[in-house]
Amino acid sequence: MALIVHKYGGTSMGSTERIRSVAKRVAKWMRAGHQMVVVPSAMSGETNRLLGLARELSPELPGAATLRELDMIASTGEQVSVGLLAIALQAEGLEAVSYAGWQVPIRTDSSFTKARIQSIDDTRVRADLAAGRVVVITGFQGVDGDGHITTLGRGGSDTSAVAVAAALKADECLIYTDVDGVYTTDPRIVPEARRLATISFEEMLEMASLGSKVLQIRSVEFAGKYRVPLRVLSSFTDWNIDITEEARSGTLITFEEDEKMEQAVVSGIAFNRDEAKVSVLGVPDKPGIASSILGPVADANIDVDVIIQNVAHDGKTDFSFTVHRNDYARTVELLKTQVVPAVGARDVSGDARICKVSIVGIGMRSHVGVASRMFRTLSEEGINIQMITTSEIKTSVVIDEKYMELAVRALHRAFDLDQPAG
Amino acid sequence: MALIVHKYGGTSMGSTERIRSVAKRVAKWMRAGHQMVVVPSAMSGETNRLLGLARELSPELPGAATLRELDMIASTGEQVSVGLLAIALQAEGLEAVSYAGWQVPIRTDSSFTKARIQSIDDTRVRADLAAGRVVVITGFQGVDGDGHITTLGRGGSDTSAVAVAAALKADECLIYTDVDGVYTTDPRIVPEARRLATISFEEMLEMASLGSKVLQIRSVEFAGKYRVPLRVLSSFTDWNIDITEEARSGTLITFEEDEKMEQAVVSGIAFNRDEAKVSVLGVPDKPGIASSILGPVADANIDVDVIIQNVAHDGKTDFSFTVHRNDYARTVELLKTQVVPAVGARDVSGDARICKVSIVGIGMRSHVGVASRMFRTLSEEGINIQMITTSEIKTSVVIDEKYMELAVRALHRAFDLDQPAG
Repeated sequence: MALIVHKYGGTSMGSTERIRSVAKRVAKWMRAGHQMVVVPSAMSGETNRLLGLARELSPELPGAATLRELDMIASTGEQVSVGLLAIALQAEGLEAVSYAGWQVPIRTDSSFTKARIQSIDDTRVRADLAAGRVVVITGFQGVDGDGHITTLGRGGSDTSAVAVAAALKADECLIYTDVDGVYTTDPRIVPEARRLATISFEEMLEMASLGSKVLQIRSVEFAGKYRVPLRVLSSFTDWNIDITEEARSGTLITFEEDEKMEQAVVSGIAFNRDEAKVSVLGVPDKPGIASSILGPVADANIDVDVIIQNVAHDGKTDFSFTVHRNDYARTVELLKTQVVPAVGARDVSGDARICKVSIVGIGMRSHVGVASRMFRTLSEEGINIQMITTSEIKTSVVIDEKYMELAVRALHRAFDLDQPAG
Repeated sequence: MALIVHKYGGTSMGSTERIRSVAKRVAKWMRAGHQMVVVPSAMSGETNRLLGLARELSPELPGAATLRELDMIASTGEQVSVGLLAIALQAEGLEAVSYAGWQVPIRTDSSFTKARIQSIDDTRVRADLAAGRVVVITGFQGVDGDGHITTLGRGGSDTSAVAVAAALKADECLIYTDVDGVYTTDPRIVPEARRLATISFEEMLEMASLGSKVLQIRSVEFAGKYRVPLRVLSSFTDWNIDITEEARSGTLITFEEDEKMEQAVVSGIAFNRDEAKVSVLGVPDKPGIASSILGPVADANIDVDVIIQNVAHDGKTDFSFTVHRNDYARTVELLKTQVVPAVGARDVSGDARICKVSIVGIGMRSHVGVASRMFRTLSEEGINIQMITTSEIKTSVVIDEKYMELAVRALHRAFDLDQPAG
């Protein structure tokens, strides 16, 4: 008997018909002798509907008191889901009980709309499991030290599921979603993309942070921290698929570096076209430049991703970084009016039509020449590289947006990702 | 400075536009120097939508575990309302904070879907009021001793508001609804019906229990028990109506028997066409008959209203009672198959096309002949009385449904209810 946590996304919970399928799938696992905890998202569209009502009443940027109320409102989507799923499980003849985050309780800090989980009390859930009940817990939310409802931000239900699995020391956490696993790259761009049977935690972390939207990045961090075996699989297979087969489907995120993974130098290609690049040109090269430029940007609540500062010539350097495309105009304006005069720079340039393409692979650690093979491949396709950043297990380049598909396909081929792993 | 509780029904909260009007009205009271607590219902239609989803998943009669989940689901309607109203109040420039029942906490027993309030902790709310905040509290719900969410049943938000007002020893509880007060009878039946400026608590209790749907009966009981000054008024007046005028509008439910009330013998005419009558005929007249007949009815969860047993002739009697019209067929079936054979009765008869008409007035206590004037009035209209019950301040008759309007109009005239109170 294992303790299994299932997480179902909003699409899987999108109608009473689909909720019934989820219940049948959970019942199958229960009848196979497992203890089951289920973390469902809100029904698809519900969170947007609720926040839309709130926005009609408060068109301005919300202050702290309003953020608290947004969490009060948005958290109800998942509360409805857990109640409905518990009823569907009862209709399948199982004992089931639902809990909102505050009932478990799942304790978080007080950062409304983007809270972080601090601790989970497993007493109540364990008692229910011991009594043979399926326990259904709201994703996306918790309660702070003063008894206020908090939410974890978009995609937070993945994090909830992994955190619950960690607290319960679950044998596995299965994330049911609308894709059947993690792919070498997006199959809509590269039809030859293959599903990975396993991916290392660190690779998954890079894939998630680089824009592969299968799992929320914080859930991967959590899984890594607490070593929760995590599997991404499809909720759109028949609920009555053979359970052994289902338990081995999808992509397993592992913490052991086994031989097979050592052989694959690059596991996947991630890409992201939500970014824009800006450069502050002719900046006097002296200590404190980076913070004089990025300080005002951070103060304006603009997130920065890639940051590049190259060696100076003639006492001047160019300082470049990328921001979300939605923040592009605001960033350029801020740099021109505040930063350029303050630091004595020459000008600001920028481009919103860029994309970031990354190769990710734990094997890069021990293989030299991986980055240069990437650069050569792009060069052979005539693609100019505008920016480069690297980490231990990934190399990212910023290129013109129009070359994105070409670059991803060429890299996928160059690293043999269309071939079954050796 | 007074402490005022406002309660708004689902229609008043039916859209963001209406929620904005509620916020403006509350802000007006706040700016007039009062401390404000607001208890809103769910947006109209929301509770039905949520319970409809649950019903799709559990078509059978729900067991206890499912009732718990129904409360989990249904309680979210009010939680959304309090969050939205708090945001609307903030948009009006006020400080506002919302609480779900469990956050106050409002403690109830564990009777899911029909819980009763046991206690309310006012510490948190008082601290917010002292800090100058409007406090918005969910109606309809609370939390039991084990931390399960409970709901109070339909119309429970009235009860929540009165209970909160009692706990806070509020100066007045204003129930904003879609009518502008309590009338001598339903103006759709009798156009001459007058709005009562005041009504005694006991009369209001009878009017509520007899089918006058202005206030939920448990809220009136609560107001009586804790002597909460209660006012029913309209939320469809302009929000910026003069506050002194608004504070005196609607109908005040009072606990003092003042002179004016002594003069009005009958305050109102209530009626109810949701009932059906059944009779068990030729019942052997011996001790225990009532319980042998009504025991199985109660066991089948059928609520009984009027009960009549007249003196016996030749050792046999007829035993009659009324049930909700929806339970009529089930009751007749139950009586025929189980009760008649068990008690040795002759037969069962019944009629679903009846109505109950009642005159209510605290003055009936000290005035003789009120009931006989009622019977004479009906007789003069040629209306046959099928059943009669009386209490200290009301007399009810069951008549053929088709005479309902005629009876209500005749009684309204006979007791001078169309004349302004002397």
